[in-house]
Amino acid sequence: MNENKEFDALAFGEILLRLSAPVNDRIFSGNVFEKRAGGAELNVVSGISLLGLRTGIISKLPKNELGTYVKNNIRFCGVSDDWLLYDESPEARLGIYFYEHGVYPRKPTVVYDRKNASINTINPDDIPEEIYHTTRLFHTSGISLALSEKTRTTATEMIKKFKAAGATISFDVNFRANLWTEAEAKMYIENILPYVDILFVSEETSRRTFGKTGELTDILKEFAKEYDIKILASTERKIISPKKHTFGSTIYNAEEDKIYKEEPYENIEVVDRIGSGDAYVSGVLYGLLAYNDCQKALEYGNACSSVKNTILGDLPSSDKKEIDRIIEAHHSKGIQSEMNR
Amino acid sequence: MNENKEFDALAFGEILLRLSAPVNDRIFSGNVFEKRAGGAELNVVSGISLLGLRTGIISKLPKNELGTYVKNNIRFCGVSDDWLLYDESPEARLGIYFYEHGVYPRKPTVVYDRKNASINTINPDDIPEEIYHTTRLFHTSGISLALSEKTRTTATEMIKKFKAAGATISFDVNFRANLWTEAEAKMYIENILPYVDILFVSEETSRRTFGKTGELTDILKEFAKEYDIKILASTERKIISPKKHTFGSTIYNAEEDKIYKEEPYENIEVVDRIGSGDAYVSGVLYGLLAYNDCQKALEYGNACSSVKNTILGDLPSSDKKEIDRIIEAHHSKGIQSEMNR
Amino acid sequence: MNENKEFDALAFGEILLRLSAPVNDRIFSGNVFEKRAGGAELNVVSGISLLGLRTGIISKLPKNELGTYVKNNIRFCGVSDDWLLYDESPEARLGIYFYEHGVYPRKPTVVYDRKNASINTINPDDIPEEIYHTTRLFHTSGISLALSEKTRTTATEMIKKFKAAGATISFDVNFRANLWTEAEAKMYIENILPYVDILFVSEETSRRTFGKTGELTDILKEFAKEYDIKILASTERKIISPKKHTFGSTIYNAEEDKIYKEEPYENIEVVDRIGSGDAYVSGVLYGLLAYNDCQKALEYGNACSSVKNTILGDLPSSDKKEIDRIIEAHHSKGIQSEMNR
Amino acid sequence: MNENKEFDALAFGEILLRLSAPVNDRIFSGNVFEKRAGGAELNVVSGISLLGLRTGIISKLPKNELGTYVKNNIRFCGVSDDWLLYDESPEARLGIYFYEHGVYPRKPTVVYDRKNASINTINPDDIPEEIYHTTRLFHTSGISLALSEKTRTTATEMIKKFKAAGATISFDVNFRANLWTEAEAKMYIENILPYVDILFVSEETSRRTFGKTGELTDILKEFAKEYDIKILASTERKIISPKKHTFGSTIYNAEEDKIYKEEPYENIEVVDRIGSGDAYVSGVLYGLLAYNDCQKALEYGNACSSVKNTILGDLPSSDKKEIDRIIEAHHSKGIQSEMNR
Amino acid sequence: MNENKEFDALAFGEILLRLSAPVNDRIFSGNVFEKRAGGAELNVVSGISLLGLRTGIISKLPKNELGTYVKNNIRFCGVSDDWLLYDESPEARLGIYFYEHGVYPRKPTVVYDRKNASINTINPDDIPEEIYHTTRLFHTSGISLALSEKTRTTATEMIKKFKAAGATISFDVNFRANLWTEAEAKMYIENILPYVDILFVSEETSRRTFGKTGELTDILKEFAKEYDIKILASTERKIISPKKHTFGSTIYNAEEDKIYKEEPYENIEVVDRIGSGDAYVSGVLYGLLAYNDCQKALEYGNACSSVKNTILGDLPSSDKKEIDRIIEAHHSKGIQSEMNR
Amino acid sequence: MNENKEFDALAFGEILLRLSAPVNDRIFSGNVFEKRAGGAELNVVSGISLLGLRTGIISKLPKNELGTYVKNNIRFCGVSDDWLLYDESPEARLGIYFYEHGVYPRKPTVVYDRKNASINTINPDDIPEEIYHTTRLFHTSGISLALSEKTRTTATEMIKKFKAAGATISFDVNFRANLWTEAEAKMYIENILPYVDILFVSEETSRRTFGKTGELTDILKEFAKEYDIKILASTERKIISPKKHTFGSTIYNAEEDKIYKEEPYENIEVVDRIGSGDAYVSGVLYGLLAYNDCQKALEYGNACSSVKNTILGDLPSSDKKEIDRIIEAHHSKGIQSEMNR
Repeated sequence: MNENKEFDALAFGEILLRLSAPVNDRIFSGNVFEKRAGGAELNVVSGISLLGLRTGIISKLPKNELGTYVKNNIRFCGVSDDWLLYDESPEARLGIYFYEHGVYPRKPTVVYDRKNASINTINPDDIPEEIYHTTRLFHTSGISLALSEKTRTTATEMIKKFKAAGATISFDVNFRANLWTEAEAKMYIENILPYVDILFVSEETSRRTFGKTGELTDILKEFAKEYDIKILASTERKIISPKKHTFGSTIYNAEEDKIYKEEPYENIEVVDRIGSGDAYVSGVLYGLLAYNDCQKALEYGNACSSVKNTILGDLPSSDKKEIDRIIEAHHSKGIQSEMNR
Repeated sequence: MNENKEFDALAFGEILLRLSAPVNDRIFSGNVFEKRAGGAELNVVSGISLLGLRTGIISKLPKNELGTYVKNNIRFCGVSDDWLLYDESPEARLGIYFYEHGVYPRKPTVVYDRKNASINTINPDDIPEEIYHTTRLFHTSGISLALSEKTRTTATEMIKKFKAAGATISFDVNFRANLWTEAEAKMYIENILPYVDILFVSEETSRRTFGKTGELTDILKEFAKEYDIKILASTERKIISPKKHTFGSTIYNAEEDKIYKEEPYENIEVVDRIGSGDAYVSGVLYGLLAYNDCQKALEYGNACSSVKNTILGDLPSSDKKEIDRIIEAHHSKGIQSEMNR
Repeated sequence: MNENKEFDALAFGEILLRLSAPVNDRIFSGNVFEKRAGGAELNVVSGISLLGLRTGIISKLPKNELGTYVKNNIRFCGVSDDWLLYDESPEARLGIYFYEHGVYPRKPTVVYDRKNASINTINPDDIPEEIYHTTRLFHTSGISLALSEKTRTTATEMIKKFKAAGATISFDVNFRANLWTEAEAKMYIENILPYVDILFVSEETSRRTFGKTGELTDILKEFAKEYDIKILASTERKIISPKKHTFGSTIYNAEEDKIYKEEPYENIEVVDRIGSGDAYVSGVLYGLLAYNDCQKALEYGNACSSVKNTILGDLPSSDKKEIDRIIEAHHSKGIQSEMNR
Repeated sequence: MNENKEFDALAFGEILLRLSAPVNDRIFSGNVFEKRAGGAELNVVSGISLLGLRTGIISKLPKNELGTYVKNNIRFCGVSDDWLLYDESPEARLGIYFYEHGVYPRKPTVVYDRKNASINTINPDDIPEEIYHTTRLFHTSGISLALSEKTRTTATEMIKKFKAAGATISFDVNFRANLWTEAEAKMYIENILPYVDILFVSEETSRRTFGKTGELTDILKEFAKEYDIKILASTERKIISPKKHTFGSTIYNAEEDKIYKEEPYENIEVVDRIGSGDAYVSGVLYGLLAYNDCQKALEYGNACSSVKNTILGDLPSSDKKEIDRIIEAHHSKGIQSEMNR
Repeated sequence: MNENKEFDALAFGEILLRLSAPVNDRIFSGNVFEKRAGGAELNVVSGISLLGLRTGIISKLPKNELGTYVKNNIRFCGVSDDWLLYDESPEARLGIYFYEHGVYPRKPTVVYDRKNASINTINPDDIPEEIYHTTRLFHTSGISLALSEKTRTTATEMIKKFKAAGATISFDVNFRANLWTEAEAKMYIENILPYVDILFVSEETSRRTFGKTGELTDILKEFAKEYDIKILASTERKIISPKKHTFGSTIYNAEEDKIYKEEPYENIEVVDRIGSGDAYVSGVLYGLLAYNDCQKALEYGNACSSVKNTILGDLPSSDKKEIDRIIEAHHSKGIQSEMNR
Repeated sequence: MNENKEFDALAFGEILLRLSAPVNDRIFSGNVFEKRAGGAELNVVSGISLLGLRTGIISKLPKNELGTYVKNNIRFCGVSDDWLLYDESPEARLGIYFYEHGVYPRKPTVVYDRKNASINTINPDDIPEEIYHTTRLFHTSGISLALSEKTRTTATEMIKKFKAAGATISFDVNFRANLWTEAEAKMYIENILPYVDILFVSEETSRRTFGKTGELTDILKEFAKEYDIKILASTERKIISPKKHTFGSTIYNAEEDKIYKEEPYENIEVVDRIGSGDAYVSGVLYGLLAYNDCQKALEYGNACSSVKNTILGDLPSSDKKEIDRIIEAHHSKGIQSEMNR
């Protein structure tokens, strides 16, 4: 990947206001919501920035106090706000989602209120042409294809133009049943798969949406061959309870025809699971951008995702020093220090 | 007014989720929003209930956790939720507004996100016919006429049907420049004025929207004559700073052809001004419903409004004992106790 | 059970102000108490209301700000406050209990300050005669018999009158060693058992207080025969630590001579255990009132109790949609969604 | 006054748990109470300790977690807990009061729940004889005479015994209409006035309870002559609003036959008025104990009281450095620093 | 001023961790400190960024979690962190100050713990040469000259090199008696005054430190002539109480030989006064950088400072839309809207 | 041990301000720090006081608001502040440490800012000679030897003088790699070991720092023989995750030549691990001071340490009643009550 670009990674996607009931409280009672910004693609670039690379987010926000709130938070986590667009119309709004933490036997709950958000007024023409040569990698997800026709058209055209300009294309399938049907997902995602270099897809979605069969490794190989995808990654999460997960993943490098896998992180003490899949993507992309090495990608991906579960909010918060310590502890067999002093 | 009805007052209007930055915090920074329910007409009936009468609210809520939140809060303040309608469609949403307190020289700020709320899917047919005979008084405001064609049609039809069923009709003009133009307001409000028995209108709106001239008392008399309105009330608020107001009002009783006025409440220590106009309406309507006496209406109106300014949130919280104490202290000339013990 | 009544269930009992140290804080340090209302019988009817039936609570509150606090919270959870009595004497007071959460090896702590509460001034004559025909079911607990002679006399008379008026009588033994001795409990409870249709009694109390022996199922059958009780329910709770419980129960239907039992909920992530026994009662009574089916009673009872453990405060908060989801997940064997979206 | 004693001042009185609604919140809504300890006599000795002298409190607490809470807070403010008695009976309880801040036109509200508190089981025999020789000064207030017969008998006997042992006797009339009638107050207070050396009494109480007439200075002189009281102090508080007071006082030294007075503190920005009268007493007693100088007593009294109004809770928090700075600023005429750096 | 530079303004100065007792709480009690970043020069560039220009801060932070905290907050307010230096030594530390709000008669209190902070290890050689050509304006304050010999040497050299590279030099005298003596201040500041283009100095410091006499306007003119300074600004703040200030200022433009002045902002409702002087500097510099107009500088300076007083923390938070609204309201004579909707 | 002393135990050591990110928050984000006092030796004496003995702390604090904060908290937990020294120099400062809780896979983090704290200006001459005869036991730890030459010299001289005056000497090795090297620790600790009566040392430090080999019991015996130490105690902690520990210990009584051991506390639900080692020391010393019995020492040590893990902050909070209940529950085999009522 070409290293002489202004950004290591740019992403396109919706940014939401997340309003969550505090731990042990509920959406329909209590008297505060915690406010945070989040969104699948923002989570990814924010994780990459924390690890030390230069990233930016392309999105559209309302030109009001809530847009300002989101912009400031994007900067806080080190992501460039240079490519944000603003909606100045009276209808401008920020999509919202409400979140309630789960505890067994009560599952976490999400209520979306993202219809008619400003992102859905975006057009391919809104994206300045000069952007396409500024980055080594472009990332987006199935959510951007699912939200509305306008986001789909814009995302699709951006994928093609970034590809043409030489950027690596990363895509996370991220199927959401409340945004589109499996048939729609299959159709529109298959349109862009030929442009994708790095694909994130779960085993379940591979089977249910794309009709794949066989072992996970077979599925990944089949995707690779079918669409000439270079690297595929798939996460495995075991939900012991809303507060305890086990997490691991599989990466397939098509050029090497090699599978990468390591011991999962067991009994993660989950504080907030949202965004841990995006944190995985950020770790993998960091491993590829910084080391061009699938073993590194696997280790950073698994560590970033595992530790994100311990952080409130969608956005990761761990820098390279923290992730390196976690990887080291995960691989270490001897006595470990109990504390970072 | 007929006293043998199930409810003393019913109101129709939108109920919003209010998300406010804590005192001294801002919408675009900080990390929590305080959550509350509110809405001009709900505020009115809630104030009447606190004073001891039976009220209910007619509105439409999304059938989700946020709808439940609002429903529970309506009950909390003693208003019946029997006539709430629920929107079960996937587009169902609760209107939201964001609020930031002011301190001189910084004014309070409101950001609305109420477009496409479930209330705007309401139809006159949604309102069960049996409702029209259940109440002594029906109240709504200009906001219900302004929100959308559907709320306007529904509100207008309800005004006519409640009138036909013998209820007293109360209407608060409550002009909001961000919802409609002055010309629209004039047109649609003039349509319903012939049905109105009790009208709340500010001097400024009388002049700007309805083109009235002359002294305030002349204006009120003119409205009364023009539309055969029995009682008219108009508030006067002096903004010394966002944290200090002076409040008084004028009531005109057309049958008696008499103006009611008293000393204003001076230097009110304002905590949250939102809803103090609605609290005024609740006090006036209480005075009329409970005593059929404009002097009582004036005193309850002024006291309810003044004390609402000291309460966080749109909804009033003072019961009759508290309001009676405040009226007594306001009229008292001698030494007063410093504290309620 | 007759369905043409105003209420599906009425209950009689003391309502307390609960002041709890926040999670991880202690009664004798820290600087706030969380405030909530609670009480065994209120918890029961509140749970039934949340599931969709109409309930009310009969109790006596001080006529002051704390009484108002409790009244508003009763409404908030959908329970009727129509039958509340108020104590206007200068001695009027609300019983209080202080609560501190446990974490192994530190147990939860309760400090009671409920002596001389207004409820203990109640008399049978305070209860209006018209109440007895308004409900399908009447519920109270051993606490009401234990608090004071006045509550005992009143509760006992109410049991007899409701029974005479055709209501189903539900009684939860709920033995509390700090309120009375086992001998007192046995004597007074045996007086009312002949009127009871549905009895909740733990295995331990059956043995220690009532001197029963043998298997739990034998004990339940013996109670049934001895007092002609139709349905008996007994919970089994395994305390792994203050933050981890396993919960199940046994129901015996005397008419069918049949035992109902299902797999317990294992490793419940306990946030607040208080009131989970009452939530069980609410689920069982709901199953009986709504379906007249002991299998439903068992499933609703176990689910209501298990999920209550995840909610702060005495009062349950789960509606029917949530309980149905939990029952379904508990019975499901396949892959489950991780989240409610 | 003899300086070779273990304590400079000991006081006797009830200590209460204060539960206050947070600023801008109400007793009957919201979800937390702030918890603090307080009590007229504790407030006084705590203020004296903060200024640098050695003090202790004589009281009776329940032997439970709430008693421990109070004990720890007594130590926190530097008052000795050596003479606390503990009630180990099952009826043991701590008196409570609930507080709500006022904002014009809403007054502050207090709800008492102090009946049957452990302090009311105290007997003169509970007080160890060795205590009477340990202090230079003994202070109590009319509240201790009003609470119950037992506290009255105990307080009265302590006044006599401390007097006999050579201690200076300080007494604050502190009339509370909800504890006793004016006739009772007059009778029991007149019994102890012959033992009093330093008397705190307001002008209003002097007139209403003791039937005094004439100018305030005449009243103080008359008390002095009638009961051979050495020093009398009387505060003047002007309530501009619950958040703005003006405070001053008058001291009469009978030996010198001299009146002390200074400019009042104007427009105090009141945060919490409770305990500011007790803080005044602490400042006056400090001035007398440390300097034996009525001018100092006046200045410390006025400054301690004024600044207490800016502190949440009953207890003062200002040490000598802070009070000295405030006195200096109050007397200064030139440009003052805006800040303590 | 040359507009083709990367930055409109760069500043050099220490950044501190501010730990403040919450409103109404004290440093020596309570159980939390609010955490924020601040520092005279950071406050200035942050204010300029909020108004829409590009700025950066030059400083030295410890390479630990607290340095990261500060860095993220710098980004949050839109200031570039490109020129931050990090101290990786084991002695690395961030300076801290503790803050307590005042309420009359209690003044605000500041406790500094800034000795041995990493900024004091800085050397002129640490500053990369390429920095000097990147900005239109360089700003620093007397604090940077006072902290230590190393910061003084570095700041002095930077002033000279930025001047040489064509940048406008802005300097705020900002005398702090706890950092150096008036004699030291005079000596070291006079060394750099010949390089200064824009000087901020108070009337009091002019007299006490620099021995100036006569009217304020004479003093400003004398400074201008003596050191060839182009623009001088001096603020006038009237402290009515810690919660109420009046603020105005005077600007002198030496080229035009003209004084600029406007009506002061009266009765500002002060929430947090810290940083309002820096906010003034930011407004003035914005007016000069954006409009090259002393009238604009005066209006932006006064408005920025006045509104900063309503914001918690050192850093301003108002963007151009807000400041423009405040200026407009300040100049308006007619009826004003009460709220920003 | 001689029981006719003013204090049962005195300790010498640094007291720090602990600023911790709230649970689930991080040092470099969030907006508050929780503030607490702590320090290894203070933790020890505070634990002993809570159990009912009389203790005091010898330390040096800055004479400012932060010193006052610490002093008040020392009193709060029942430790005497009679022997505190104050640093009135302008350089006076309180050492600080920042703390962040861990959750697997994220470890807890500590950032120290304790350089140049006032404690490091202490001299042996600062300690008044009369102190040496006031206590039965003197305790300090390796931290006091490691902080600076001044604390080392002072601590060493105090050990010798207390020993000479007949006090029992207790020493906790408490090795901290960030304060000194293992070689330094070995040299300076070996200097004082001949004076030590009760030694706390971990197995790991025994091996790494002192080069011991063999079984733990052999190591303890070797220390005992080498330096004539009477009692040695060594803790064993198993870190299952940052939120789950298992804890036990071994005590060796040299006179009896006997090893004491009991079942460890398994699966402790850890809230805050800091200070649990010091709580162990407090329990052991209490067992020895109150009962002169190693079995009691073992049981109190293990219980105090285990339950400290459930308490936020460095300082323990459990009194004798609580510890006795925990010991009883730990030893009990039958059914246990779920709650303390």
